[in-house]
Amino acid sequence: MKRIVILGSTGSIGTSTLDIVAKFPHEFQIVGLTAGTNDEKLEEQIRTFKPLAVALSDKAAAARLRARCKATGVEILDGVEGTAAVAALAEGDLVISAIVGGAGLVPTLAAIRARKQVALANKEPMVMAGALMQEEARKHGVRIFPVDSEHSAIFQSLEGHRREDVRRLILTASGGPLWDMPKEEMRDVKPQQALRHPNWKMGAKITIDSATLMNKGLEVVEARWLFDVPASQIEVLVHRESIIHSLVEYCDGSVIAQLGLPDMRTPISYAMKYPERMPLDPPPLDLAGIGKLTFHRPDHERFPCLGFGYEALRIAGTMPATLNAANEVAVAAYLQERIGFLDIAEVIRATMDAHTPRPVTTLEDALEADRSAREEASAKVTAITR
Amino acid sequence: MKRIVILGSTGSIGTSTLDIVAKFPHEFQIVGLTAGTNDEKLEEQIRTFKPLAVALSDKAAAARLRARCKATGVEILDGVEGTAAVAALAEGDLVISAIVGGAGLVPTLAAIRARKQVALANKEPMVMAGALMQEEARKHGVRIFPVDSEHSAIFQSLEGHRREDVRRLILTASGGPLWDMPKEEMRDVKPQQALRHPNWKMGAKITIDSATLMNKGLEVVEARWLFDVPASQIEVLVHRESIIHSLVEYCDGSVIAQLGLPDMRTPISYAMKYPERMPLDPPPLDLAGIGKLTFHRPDHERFPCLGFGYEALRIAGTMPATLNAANEVAVAAYLQERIGFLDIAEVIRATMDAHTPRPVTTLEDALEADRSAREEASAKVTAITR
Repeated sequence: MKRIVILGSTGSIGTSTLDIVAKFPHEFQIVGLTAGTNDEKLEEQIRTFKPLAVALSDKAAAARLRARCKATGVEILDGVEGTAAVAALAEGDLVISAIVGGAGLVPTLAAIRARKQVALANKEPMVMAGALMQEEARKHGVRIFPVDSEHSAIFQSLEGHRREDVRRLILTASGGPLWDMPKEEMRDVKPQQALRHPNWKMGAKITIDSATLMNKGLEVVEARWLFDVPASQIEVLVHRESIIHSLVEYCDGSVIAQLGLPDMRTPISYAMKYPERMPLDPPPLDLAGIGKLTFHRPDHERFPCLGFGYEALRIAGTMPATLNAANEVAVAAYLQERIGFLDIAEVIRATMDAHTPRPVTTLEDALEADRSAREEASAKVTAITR
Repeated sequence: MKRIVILGSTGSIGTSTLDIVAKFPHEFQIVGLTAGTNDEKLEEQIRTFKPLAVALSDKAAAARLRARCKATGVEILDGVEGTAAVAALAEGDLVISAIVGGAGLVPTLAAIRARKQVALANKEPMVMAGALMQEEARKHGVRIFPVDSEHSAIFQSLEGHRREDVRRLILTASGGPLWDMPKEEMRDVKPQQALRHPNWKMGAKITIDSATLMNKGLEVVEARWLFDVPASQIEVLVHRESIIHSLVEYCDGSVIAQLGLPDMRTPISYAMKYPERMPLDPPPLDLAGIGKLTFHRPDHERFPCLGFGYEALRIAGTMPATLNAANEVAVAAYLQERIGFLDIAEVIRATMDAHTPRPVTTLEDALEADRSAREEASAKVTAITR
């Protein structure tokens, strides 16, 4: 019986994780859950999974939940500190890190420092402070299992093969909902349209990141730290069907890939039960029925955000955290229809240009870069909306 | 320094193996070579690689070679016994089994019984006596490494993952040079045309087997024994581009595949140096340049030989050896233009129908089935040509 804490239990990855726990009650037990503001959904989850402790980052939401859940005996914490305390819960074995955005950094690091195994679905902490995260994981003997479908594919394609034989990591990208759209039309794309992902049903922030290809830029940074491979050996391949989730090329010309129908339960359950696989028994992959798989080079002209990921890695220090914060601010502004689709890249570009990178040696360095980039990016957004 | 014996050194796999040895002289040393009748090519190989012993199965060819190679000091043996003696050479560490057809059975078994590691490119012994080969390998502590590109792909896709989680093996098939041809036209296909494989440059026998899809039927039988997976869990998928060499599907829906440009040096070198990979450094796999990979279900009506493989496995005992012998006789007759292309399947079908299967518990059982099936099939060929 593995005891599970989910950071971000009311989101897409969180609820998929709970589906797996519900399907295999003899394998997993929920001991902790955290969410942002959704106290109603968290209440349902408390009543179904009976955790020992939960946290809501929103203090008012936590107060509402406490009023309704007195009888359950669950401990209800709040804020960043409360979320970090649930991440470090003594009873937890494995922490599923599935908070959206940079807000995941502090609690994920708390889990690592408490020597919990970590299944990482939240790529932003690795972008903000990748070297620091890996250093802390090493120091505390913690193994980080990727949950992102691409990174899980790389992880699975490395298993059983020698790291010194690796020549390239190839991350596949669906290209998102706007892959075929001319740049002139992109200017007027409404969130509703950009949120229509062709293959994956995901949260709003990551779906917009898929539409800009920023998601793939963030994934390049994540892969660099998760697998300790330089950016020059990480490539991106557009693969519209999202069947090949990623590939690893070795020095003898052999390429190992992981494929599957788009279903996040596969990488989540693999990270939860590694090295065993759970008998999810989804429909077989019918490649003859699918007929063909297609591949394209990414278009950096229409999708500049992918290149920003490589650029931030090259500059290093606080630049990846700056990139990430600027993107979060820009995507939020776009979802509120305060700026246009093409402005997302403009806000990130301007924020990166205004930033003087410094080294990241402590958590505070990353958080400070995050804070100042958010201010800078917010000012750019205001300038555009004016 | 690994000491290598090559059975079938003048064929396609044999010469590719020698290319690898020549490229990495500090890794490998040739101690034994065997061939069938080609004494001239074997003489060249002796002068380049300086083995301790060689054998030619053709005694007259061996006599010619002895006359010319006295000064080299190499021991020159002949016949099946001589070939088996080189396979079991005391100085050998690894035997590359690359003889064409059932003739490989006795020397490959000799290598196993002499506790040599075996890299198996010659699928027919596994078809003729799969259970026996695996039993002997187990008894003598010998690991058999597949060299066939498909089986190497399965092997690589199983590495690092749990065997009990396997749901399906998926062998890919190029479909061969006649994949798109209507059945009426197949009747008149000349060997020259059937020998034009779209992706792989291989020997004549295996290329005709690719054109009939008998090669894939034999591979299903080989996979059953190599990986100890029942035929019901082995599927065949037509993939014209031969980029995905095969796939393994697991119980959580994850599919691991091995890909690469068609180059036999990859699976050969992997079998030679496992678990390490040799830095062959071929051009990178450019999937965007290739553009698309296509998949089809096999057409059992136009290609009945694939089904014969499954049928022989189901009937078991001496039936797979009978299938294999009938195919060898039919392909030889076709290459000599004694029978037509569609007659190959007819000869196999009639030979299998005439056979009463018995168990295979000894090598002699398999050899006897092979002999009597050859007689039966030869009679069918004669009946057709009359």
